[in-house]
Amino acid sequence: MSDLLGVAVLGAGHMGADHIRRLDRVVSGARVAAVADPDVERAKRAVAGIPGARVHAEAEAALDAPGVEAVLIASPGPAHEEALLAAFARGLPVLCEKPMVPGSRGALRIVEAEVRLGRRLAQIGFMRRYDAEYGRLKAVLDEGRLGRPLMLHCVHRNVSSPPDFTSAMLIDSSVAHEIDAARWLLGEELTAVTVVRPRSSGRAPEGLLDPQFVLFETAGGALVDVEVFVNCGFGYQVRCEAVCEAGSARIGEGHGMLVTSAGGAREEVAQDYLVRFADAYDREVQAWVEAVRRGRVTGPSAWDGYAASAVAEAGVRAQESGVRTTVDLAPRPALYA
Amino acid sequence: MSDLLGVAVLGAGHMGADHIRRLDRVVSGARVAAVADPDVERAKRAVAGIPGARVHAEAEAALDAPGVEAVLIASPGPAHEEALLAAFARGLPVLCEKPMVPGSRGALRIVEAEVRLGRRLAQIGFMRRYDAEYGRLKAVLDEGRLGRPLMLHCVHRNVSSPPDFTSAMLIDSSVAHEIDAARWLLGEELTAVTVVRPRSSGRAPEGLLDPQFVLFETAGGALVDVEVFVNCGFGYQVRCEAVCEAGSARIGEGHGMLVTSAGGAREEVAQDYLVRFADAYDREVQAWVEAVRRGRVTGPSAWDGYAASAVAEAGVRAQESGVRTTVDLAPRPALYA
Amino acid sequence: MSDLLGVAVLGAGHMGADHIRRLDRVVSGARVAAVADPDVERAKRAVAGIPGARVHAEAEAALDAPGVEAVLIASPGPAHEEALLAAFARGLPVLCEKPMVPGSRGALRIVEAEVRLGRRLAQIGFMRRYDAEYGRLKAVLDEGRLGRPLMLHCVHRNVSSPPDFTSAMLIDSSVAHEIDAARWLLGEELTAVTVVRPRSSGRAPEGLLDPQFVLFETAGGALVDVEVFVNCGFGYQVRCEAVCEAGSARIGEGHGMLVTSAGGAREEVAQDYLVRFADAYDREVQAWVEAVRRGRVTGPSAWDGYAASAVAEAGVRAQESGVRTTVDLAPRPALYA
Amino acid sequence: MSDLLGVAVLGAGHMGADHIRRLDRVVSGARVAAVADPDVERAKRAVAGIPGARVHAEAEAALDAPGVEAVLIASPGPAHEEALLAAFARGLPVLCEKPMVPGSRGALRIVEAEVRLGRRLAQIGFMRRYDAEYGRLKAVLDEGRLGRPLMLHCVHRNVSSPPDFTSAMLIDSSVAHEIDAARWLLGEELTAVTVVRPRSSGRAPEGLLDPQFVLFETAGGALVDVEVFVNCGFGYQVRCEAVCEAGSARIGEGHGMLVTSAGGAREEVAQDYLVRFADAYDREVQAWVEAVRRGRVTGPSAWDGYAASAVAEAGVRAQESGVRTTVDLAPRPALYA
Repeated sequence: MSDLLGVAVLGAGHMGADHIRRLDRVVSGARVAAVADPDVERAKRAVAGIPGARVHAEAEAALDAPGVEAVLIASPGPAHEEALLAAFARGLPVLCEKPMVPGSRGALRIVEAEVRLGRRLAQIGFMRRYDAEYGRLKAVLDEGRLGRPLMLHCVHRNVSSPPDFTSAMLIDSSVAHEIDAARWLLGEELTAVTVVRPRSSGRAPEGLLDPQFVLFETAGGALVDVEVFVNCGFGYQVRCEAVCEAGSARIGEGHGMLVTSAGGAREEVAQDYLVRFADAYDREVQAWVEAVRRGRVTGPSAWDGYAASAVAEAGVRAQESGVRTTVDLAPRPALYA
Repeated sequence: MSDLLGVAVLGAGHMGADHIRRLDRVVSGARVAAVADPDVERAKRAVAGIPGARVHAEAEAALDAPGVEAVLIASPGPAHEEALLAAFARGLPVLCEKPMVPGSRGALRIVEAEVRLGRRLAQIGFMRRYDAEYGRLKAVLDEGRLGRPLMLHCVHRNVSSPPDFTSAMLIDSSVAHEIDAARWLLGEELTAVTVVRPRSSGRAPEGLLDPQFVLFETAGGALVDVEVFVNCGFGYQVRCEAVCEAGSARIGEGHGMLVTSAGGAREEVAQDYLVRFADAYDREVQAWVEAVRRGRVTGPSAWDGYAASAVAEAGVRAQESGVRTTVDLAPRPALYA
Repeated sequence: MSDLLGVAVLGAGHMGADHIRRLDRVVSGARVAAVADPDVERAKRAVAGIPGARVHAEAEAALDAPGVEAVLIASPGPAHEEALLAAFARGLPVLCEKPMVPGSRGALRIVEAEVRLGRRLAQIGFMRRYDAEYGRLKAVLDEGRLGRPLMLHCVHRNVSSPPDFTSAMLIDSSVAHEIDAARWLLGEELTAVTVVRPRSSGRAPEGLLDPQFVLFETAGGALVDVEVFVNCGFGYQVRCEAVCEAGSARIGEGHGMLVTSAGGAREEVAQDYLVRFADAYDREVQAWVEAVRRGRVTGPSAWDGYAASAVAEAGVRAQESGVRTTVDLAPRPALYA
Repeated sequence: MSDLLGVAVLGAGHMGADHIRRLDRVVSGARVAAVADPDVERAKRAVAGIPGARVHAEAEAALDAPGVEAVLIASPGPAHEEALLAAFARGLPVLCEKPMVPGSRGALRIVEAEVRLGRRLAQIGFMRRYDAEYGRLKAVLDEGRLGRPLMLHCVHRNVSSPPDFTSAMLIDSSVAHEIDAARWLLGEELTAVTVVRPRSSGRAPEGLLDPQFVLFETAGGALVDVEVFVNCGFGYQVRCEAVCEAGSARIGEGHGMLVTSAGGAREEVAQDYLVRFADAYDREVQAWVEAVRRGRVTGPSAWDGYAASAVAEAGVRAQESGVRTTVDLAPRPALYA
């Protein structure tokens, strides 16, 4: 396996730089062949010390650079659609960070473009599917000994929100992870959404409704509730309990070390998603590289990216209207059956 | 303290017999002076071996029996109103099992009667307030270091429902406990309720919607969500997480013993509420006996009983209509300030 | 059951006053009939407000007071032998706090005196046998599905030691609880003991070897290790793991409430044994009262008190000598078979 | 970093094949350049599909193969000394699986040889130092807020032992991990050891003393106790609690998923060390590759390998003699200061 897969990385910001490091030093079987970022200096800093990694200002130039065999899109969301279509035009497999494309209309255009190609090239960056705990939860549900899942209780908490985070982003950026996880865990589409707003925390920036409580209904009648709280102040917590007919399974509760000192026993709570899900990111990119080198595309598809967008859009509408809102999904193409 | 408080127990069924045993053998400072049950044989079995405990077919006869100084009502709900009014008429302090009176109209009549008396005689049997874990949760919330509570996530699961359990009873019998606990923990009235129905478990008896998911809003804008699942099959679980501005506190997670054997580590899950809350029942009756012997009435009031009824009624209407339903509460009399 | 058992309490110090409160207000079926303490004022304070409880300076006067049917010994250890013999002489059932008698020679004299009587009158205050968690552990071991127990790993920690606590007292006062618990859980006598001294904590008072690590061997070859650390600084912790042929069972790990705030999730650790074992003390005294009222003596016997003394004595010798020391036990009388 | 480090792997058995896979598909920055195993067919199976990986029957041939820049020794222990010296003679950095050399005399010869070279070439495969939980425990101890460590309580359990596992191997193969972990966590040499034998499990193969209980003393007076139980039947468990002057820290307790079904809540227990420590192995080899490519040798040294051997040898003598046995260590060369 020593001829390494040449990857073009689009975007050299926080996420892009982390993926560049991952491709260079963590994942085996791949190399960074090209990087594109309008901020060329930033891109240069991200590839410092990596032989053979050339820097470009334009995404298309990176796709066309010598040795590029696959693309990892980590640029801002609005640039994704053009980048995905450019990769499709060149027949390059893509790993695209979420959101695939902001807005379900654009997302559906990607699905349609890939259906026209007639083969899958895109894998979407829903990295929770590669997390060990989520993997065990999925396995327990699929194996069936707990019976049919009836409800998922989810919690998604961040210490604090970045500047300019909006109430809508609690749904379409944060809860987007639960949207994909719920669809994947349950194997069902989400069909309606209601958003309930408790009183906001005094720690939330002015104008931000935080926390929020989101209820999804699935095609089969299961219920998914999500507490999303992006200024909880105390840690990064992602929990999920699947309540089934014959039992329940919970993840996100575990601790690595328990420290007992005056008056209490304390377990660490992760402060950041890059800590909590570091292994999941590694496994995601490793799995993509291995599949691509074998000529395959696996993992979350463009359909998954589109469905997540469509549900998130309905969620934002539900948040604004205060009432239950149904989700409109285009028919599912056979390519994603 | 050795002149014992003479208690008349109304009702000698499952709950009544347990309270008779508790007054006789667990609680100090009290004795069973009289028992009333239309099924006199059942009442006789319940007092077998207890010297001085006389059996009556009629509640009023028990209240008028010699040595009766206080009343514990454990008869079926429809008999409560008459029994409470009879106790009030005699000036006897009462511990009344929940529901105080079925339906908020009857409950309000009890409040009005006690207000006319001008002093509290009734304590309502919301025994979770006497549970050690709930007590610690209340203390943490009151002490304020976690900031304002924003949400309560509650779970209420039973192994299986008794025969003839109806969908409405999930709200007005089971969730009734969470209604009182939420009002008490948050110190706020509940003002609206929405009931969501996930698909039902295959283990639920035909015609029973089980599980259900209930959302309460409080006067101050906090949100209380309750999973109620009375045929969960695996255990009796009562959990509550209070999510606050600066932290969260959870109860109902603890284990007493962890047994590790082939392939897993297992902790016991209680199968019955009488096991899980045995100590709370003991503490509740002990606290009532001690207060009464000092001429006081403390604990959950008739107002608490009424408010729980009014919220549960709105819950049943929300369950039927499928839409958010506001709770109508009479003005709170000064007696319960 | 309303004619209450009249109990004489010997000793009105910390433990005695707590038992007086317990007999008066927690345990049903008993009343405090007499109290003896050389410090008569202290005894008067302990019975304030309890009708019928008379105070004496002399133990024998309390035993002979009218209405006394049973004795609870909570005086200092050196007074126990005389008090036990006085109770035996009067045929009074006794609940005697640990140590039954300081030193195994005196303890054996109690055993011999009770054997001469030909019936059991004494129950020794090893209250862990009445703790719910220990009870579950015992039940799991007896039921046999984990196979034969091979090792017990025990931890016994206190926040800080009282003044004048000596290195020997870590064994004969603190580890005494584990000595009885191990004998009871395993159903085997302890036959040898080794004491290992790690470096002492800087928090230990000068001259006190703390922590210590004690190894017991049983007649059947099981191993019991005990960390005893009486100035651990952070809490009162009692843990026990039974490692068996087909699994392990652990107690003392559970939490009642988990509070998550900045950076960590914290569970409370009890600070005091009266908190951790409050229910066990209640159950112990309740069980004794109920048995006595039925004319029985159950619970830990004088033999158990003697065996604990003999093992603790060997432990103190092992601590001094630094080598493994065998335990000498007299033959077990048939009365305790 | 895309010119990959060429590694010769000695040994293509269970461990060797796993490392070959790791170098090829998990670790970035390295490639398998040569493999040596007397069983050439086994070696060929291990490198199937890896371009450029040549197979040799002789270790020295692999070391001399073109492109070899570093050596990973995963051959049986008796072959290690010769392989290490051959690598030293060629100036090749080595990652050597534990035990470095069986027996402390041979281990000391390696130390002496490396001291003669005057620079470190060897890293020993004590992979627990690369485990995330051990890393956090080490960090907490080093940071000092829990005060000085006084005791380590360790548990090391396997489901079942491989054929031909001897009583001595419980010490010099299994407890060897705790020996290194204790030295590393505490930063002190181990100076004496006592082995206590509880009764053996009925599941232990005939002639095998299992479980055993091992006590180590450190130069500074700390105590390390280890339960080693290689036929516990229920899982692979590695736990460590560091008891310090101002608190305790525990690892190895955490769970990834809690499944509640009829009557209990169950968490998974790993069945195998390759599952529990998979990430640690990955990080260990990755760290070695990165260091070597930068011309450095870090991680556990030949001195650590020698010290572990010397302690294990004393442990086996203590096991045979039944008495406390001191550990003889040669003076520590300045190279390992």
